[in-house]
Amino acid sequence: MKNHPFDKAIKLAAQEDGSWLGHTSASYANMVGPFGGVTAAQALNAVLVHPDLLGEPISLTVNFAAAVTHGPFIVQARAARTNRSTQHWIVEMIQAGQTVLTATVVTATRRETWSLDEESMPACPLPEHVPLPTTAIPMEWVKRYEVRPIVGGMPEVWDASGHSSLSQLWVRDNPPRPLDFASLAALADIFFPRVFIRRATFVPIGTVSMTVYFHANGQQLADTGKGYLLGQARAQAFRNGFFDQTSQLWNEAGSLLVTTHQVVYYKE
Amino acid sequence: MKNHPFDKAIKLAAQEDGSWLGHTSASYANMVGPFGGVTAAQALNAVLVHPDLLGEPISLTVNFAAAVTHGPFIVQARAARTNRSTQHWIVEMIQAGQTVLTATVVTATRRETWSLDEESMPACPLPEHVPLPTTAIPMEWVKRYEVRPIVGGMPEVWDASGHSSLSQLWVRDNPPRPLDFASLAALADIFFPRVFIRRATFVPIGTVSMTVYFHANGQQLADTGKGYLLGQARAQAFRNGFFDQTSQLWNEAGSLLVTTHQVVYYKE
Repeated sequence: MKNHPFDKAIKLAAQEDGSWLGHTSASYANMVGPFGGVTAAQALNAVLVHPDLLGEPISLTVNFAAAVTHGPFIVQARAARTNRSTQHWIVEMIQAGQTVLTATVVTATRRETWSLDEESMPACPLPEHVPLPTTAIPMEWVKRYEVRPIVGGMPEVWDASGHSSLSQLWVRDNPPRPLDFASLAALADIFFPRVFIRRATFVPIGTVSMTVYFHANGQQLADTGKGYLLGQARAQAFRNGFFDQTSQLWNEAGSLLVTTHQVVYYKE
Repeated sequence: MKNHPFDKAIKLAAQEDGSWLGHTSASYANMVGPFGGVTAAQALNAVLVHPDLLGEPISLTVNFAAAVTHGPFIVQARAARTNRSTQHWIVEMIQAGQTVLTATVVTATRRETWSLDEESMPACPLPEHVPLPTTAIPMEWVKRYEVRPIVGGMPEVWDASGHSSLSQLWVRDNPPRPLDFASLAALADIFFPRVFIRRATFVPIGTVSMTVYFHANGQQLADTGKGYLLGQARAQAFRNGFFDQTSQLWNEAGSLLVTTHQVVYYKE
């Protein structure tokens, strides 16, 4: 999939000092700067391509320290601790000599154990029965995802009428692309800010920190392939400038691939 | 509260190189090594006592990179980015020259905005109507908390009979201590491993990563004082060696103080 815009977006070039050089992608431009999900995927990718990598991602936390501007960036990824079957990474993304993102990643080799999804996929119509949204959203990154909102779509009227922050939607890359850890990290950030849904009121926002727990291994992602994911998101608390959102992504077979959380700045 | 075991446990001494020297606390000993919640609080405290600190904690992620052993440790806390109203910290805890914990912390100055708790406190009996558990748990740290389990307490019989990982409980420090950010970070780790509750089967476990979102500011914590917190925890997925747990802590007035998540290693 070397020609897919996502693969181009997360491409990193090894530097002599062990860091990685990347570039923001116009294909994933947001209103200001790039879509945060792709920035998270770029940070994760510095671990995924690292020659010292042990195992597969279990946990990723990215902290958006400053606005990323369109242009080149450096990613530094350091294995702070390597155990027999787990590894702990510290990652920083740098633009013009300043840190714009900090991250930690835990990777591990998994073995088969007793397993169970306690959070079952909610009952939903099949993706082919859910129409595409009629409201056009101008940001470029939104066009890189095929989103079919089931409940809690973007408000059609901003009349402060919201009563729940719950959203459910089908989503996949556009054009479709086989799922992997990097694209799943980006998909974890697909949900519009809960404050928009809950209030039907537009306020300035910005994600501050996002954590992704990967429940699937690489084989399960490969088996998911180009299929749709069912995404669900809701807020738990909005308080004095920051709210959280808690989300899940299942594949069409009903397996929970990711649980993810973020805390988001909002104004007013 | 300088004589409270928790204050003694999180005490750090400034070192000449800008790092902090601490010591594990016998009062919070777990089966092997210290209780992870206090380790998280020690890591957070290196930011809280730092002379460069801006604002109050919004988000904390701690990654337990290796078993912490009883004895001294060094904590390094670096402000990777300081903005006008937010600050991004990278923290490492070191024992015998090796990294045993990595963490990131986001702090911010808050201002008053429209606010709402979407996740309401579940209906529960008052703390004084919930008896203390009859099963004695031998670990020392368990004695430092007064826990009154409502549902989903520690299994009385390990007969593989579990059917839900949901727990609800009242909790406060023992002896009672006015709530602050450090003690709240430790309380976020109060919930027994969900795999024990769900399976009523004992398996080896260890928390790998924990994220805490602080919805309350310092004033709200001071107002909560020595009161009980209502804690709720459940798992979303158990898969091939790792499960997650998602939790909330409300004060008695029903205000959501913290939402928190962790991913935990388990065997078998």
